[in-house]
Amino acid sequence: MPSGSERDGVSDALLLDQYELTMAQAYFEHGMTAPASFELFVRRLPRDRGFLIAAGLEQALDFLESFRFTESELDYLAGSGQLSRAFVERLSRLRFSGEVWALPEGTAFFANEPIVRVTAPLPEAQLVETRLINLLHFQTLIASKAARVVLAAQGRKLIDFGLRRAHGAEAGLFAARAAYVAGFDGTSNVQAGARFDIPSYGTMAHSFIQAHEDEALAFERFAVTHPDNVVLLIDTYDTEAAAEKVVALSSRLRDRGIAIKAVRIDSGDLGAHARKVRAILDAGGLRDVGIVASSGLDERSIDLLVRSGSPIDMFAPGTHVVTSADTPFLDCAYKLVEYAGRPCFKLSEGKVTYPGRKQVSRILDATGQIVSDTLHLQDERGPGAPLLERVMVGGHRVFAAAKLTDVRRRAAESIVSLPLRLRALDPGPPPPLALSSQIEALMRPTNKATP
Amino acid sequence: MPSGSERDGVSDALLLDQYELTMAQAYFEHGMTAPASFELFVRRLPRDRGFLIAAGLEQALDFLESFRFTESELDYLAGSGQLSRAFVERLSRLRFSGEVWALPEGTAFFANEPIVRVTAPLPEAQLVETRLINLLHFQTLIASKAARVVLAAQGRKLIDFGLRRAHGAEAGLFAARAAYVAGFDGTSNVQAGARFDIPSYGTMAHSFIQAHEDEALAFERFAVTHPDNVVLLIDTYDTEAAAEKVVALSSRLRDRGIAIKAVRIDSGDLGAHARKVRAILDAGGLRDVGIVASSGLDERSIDLLVRSGSPIDMFAPGTHVVTSADTPFLDCAYKLVEYAGRPCFKLSEGKVTYPGRKQVSRILDATGQIVSDTLHLQDERGPGAPLLERVMVGGHRVFAAAKLTDVRRRAAESIVSLPLRLRALDPGPPPPLALSSQIEALMRPTNKATP
Repeated sequence: MPSGSERDGVSDALLLDQYELTMAQAYFEHGMTAPASFELFVRRLPRDRGFLIAAGLEQALDFLESFRFTESELDYLAGSGQLSRAFVERLSRLRFSGEVWALPEGTAFFANEPIVRVTAPLPEAQLVETRLINLLHFQTLIASKAARVVLAAQGRKLIDFGLRRAHGAEAGLFAARAAYVAGFDGTSNVQAGARFDIPSYGTMAHSFIQAHEDEALAFERFAVTHPDNVVLLIDTYDTEAAAEKVVALSSRLRDRGIAIKAVRIDSGDLGAHARKVRAILDAGGLRDVGIVASSGLDERSIDLLVRSGSPIDMFAPGTHVVTSADTPFLDCAYKLVEYAGRPCFKLSEGKVTYPGRKQVSRILDATGQIVSDTLHLQDERGPGAPLLERVMVGGHRVFAAAKLTDVRRRAAESIVSLPLRLRALDPGPPPPLALSSQIEALMRPTNKATP
Repeated sequence: MPSGSERDGVSDALLLDQYELTMAQAYFEHGMTAPASFELFVRRLPRDRGFLIAAGLEQALDFLESFRFTESELDYLAGSGQLSRAFVERLSRLRFSGEVWALPEGTAFFANEPIVRVTAPLPEAQLVETRLINLLHFQTLIASKAARVVLAAQGRKLIDFGLRRAHGAEAGLFAARAAYVAGFDGTSNVQAGARFDIPSYGTMAHSFIQAHEDEALAFERFAVTHPDNVVLLIDTYDTEAAAEKVVALSSRLRDRGIAIKAVRIDSGDLGAHARKVRAILDAGGLRDVGIVASSGLDERSIDLLVRSGSPIDMFAPGTHVVTSADTPFLDCAYKLVEYAGRPCFKLSEGKVTYPGRKQVSRILDATGQIVSDTLHLQDERGPGAPLLERVMVGGHRVFAAAKLTDVRRRAAESIVSLPLRLRALDPGPPPPLALSSQIEALMRPTNKATP
């Protein structure tokens, strides 16, 4: 899973589309190795997204720094019958030597704003296309979804429970990271906890209750084994009856110095159950015992629960966040914007790209809220503060990797800079994106005649 | 990415939810290591699915056979503060020693039918839960989506173009495999081609055209470099104008012994463009040049294109298939059905499970169409042919891994056994699922009193 290293002779270099190889061979054969700039951006925001949160840059830079084909991969390519020997030999020496500009992870952004710009000899910049999109698209997708959940939860704790229904291991790992960046408090995913130092949470499944012939015995055994982490799942048979058992158990446990931390409800009408359970716990003197809710949660259901005053202290969404279920992809692209100093266009219907190496500058008002963004050429001065930073030169990072907690703080600050209409679950229109005069000049018909 | 081995001290064993560790520690401490049986099933089919196709078993068995924690993982767990030393020591020796029954990959199935049953000492069976679901859920999700696309394409070729928007590397890899199982002809994903011996396809992106100042020159250079694989992307500026350039180029290339194989259209109204391009190619004597279409394709858009007679020879769907975009998850579960010989229940609202170790038997009619399925206990004899086979004993496979082309053939046969109403894009009701008398007896209220 870790990008940037190899296992069993498998690196991340083969994570490409066949056409990148066929194109790169043609580029080498025809001497087309001048610098090319590609920009990665999202063409339009999904219906229910007022903003996106950039994420995944750390893994993208890992990938670029360690890009190389292994011996067994080169053997496979040489034997595929689709590529020349000379080209495969060239691939064996190929490393990524380019420059990268990017939005810092955690930055809020909008449609048509580049989040990464790669400048490198054309074949290099082309060969890394697919994995770069694959890494940046997914974490950005999940951070953007998770940010909505964080807004809906209005300060209640959030834990990612999504690994089982994530699309493979890497999706589970990176979704936990992206959700944490967006403001989640932790994850049930142990590998994500280990790799990214994200707090990990978890206590028991229904199977734990079912494996015992008696529900109260199951509760007690768990409490004795994990006295500092007593969170009891109470909906296996009858939620309120189980809450009564928790009350009865609590005094026996108190005598042994064990405090029950919380109960978890995982089915039915979570709000109604939470109210009844809260009343039972309170009547039993367990005001300090929290209520955790899980089961099919997303920002809409959490919003309803929060706004109706449900006494739920922690939410554990899973599937809907790690798959971004309402919109499981973004309409993103990695497009050539300049080759050998010549700005490049594309006029395909519905898929027009802006030419030239671009920067985004952002104007904030006196209260720190976003007023507008401007898309301008890298060498132009834009109004406001430029968002893209130079993060890699000559194939190597020019800064130390950011701490994940710092990225998380940046995301929180970026979300606070969004006008309220964009933070709503049904968002209003995005801030205006102005085009600089130089970009407008490049877009004029005389400049974009069909070659 | 490969499951079942390790890289940088990272195995697949930590791909679990924290609660599996806390439960397992309690099981060991309280001597609960008797055999437990868990079954993995889908609670209900999504709205637009008349059937599902089981996939991912090969990777699930790889995972079980090689399950073990690495030294660095054990160190992490020991230092996490949430687990006892004695338990972590026990984990260091833990291997999967259980028995597995499963639907062969490629088998069509329906709601509430177990696709995998694991029987092992309780802690073992519990610790493998999350990764087993993660592996089987995703490939089943994608194979089931891809099967709909295959039905809609009515024999036209299909290539997976989805890696860039798949949810991480593993998702792209396994989606290519699952789509191939379901009947796709190949993939653009080079790593999937290498690992699973799936035919790989690809020629050029818009960037190839844009990097040249002249579109016709780009076409010619590509053809010279890849004379056996001349597929030209014609929608960068003006699709029909580019088709005319293809005609002009073809005679020059013919003189050099190079034949153009196909053109690709990647934007706009694909059907309308295909008709105009077909007419231009035919008028230019290029009746043998095929048309490939891509851009946001799914089973609905392919169905419309096919039924309206669009002259498209090959479709290349991507995002919508590899994310199963209309329904990016299945409501699946891995539930305890028996512990120490005692059948187990769960009554949580909307999440009831059937008790006991179960088998599914299927009745076909004289024409080979599915009539009904029956859910019965493993030791009961059901009507029809049993579907689950014993695939692992004592932690080791009891059969040689199936060839992927054989799995693909089985999927094709299983799809043909489905009544036509289930193969429709708007499917009719599933075949009846009967419960055996012994399961019904276990479900009676006297047997399922709340513990």
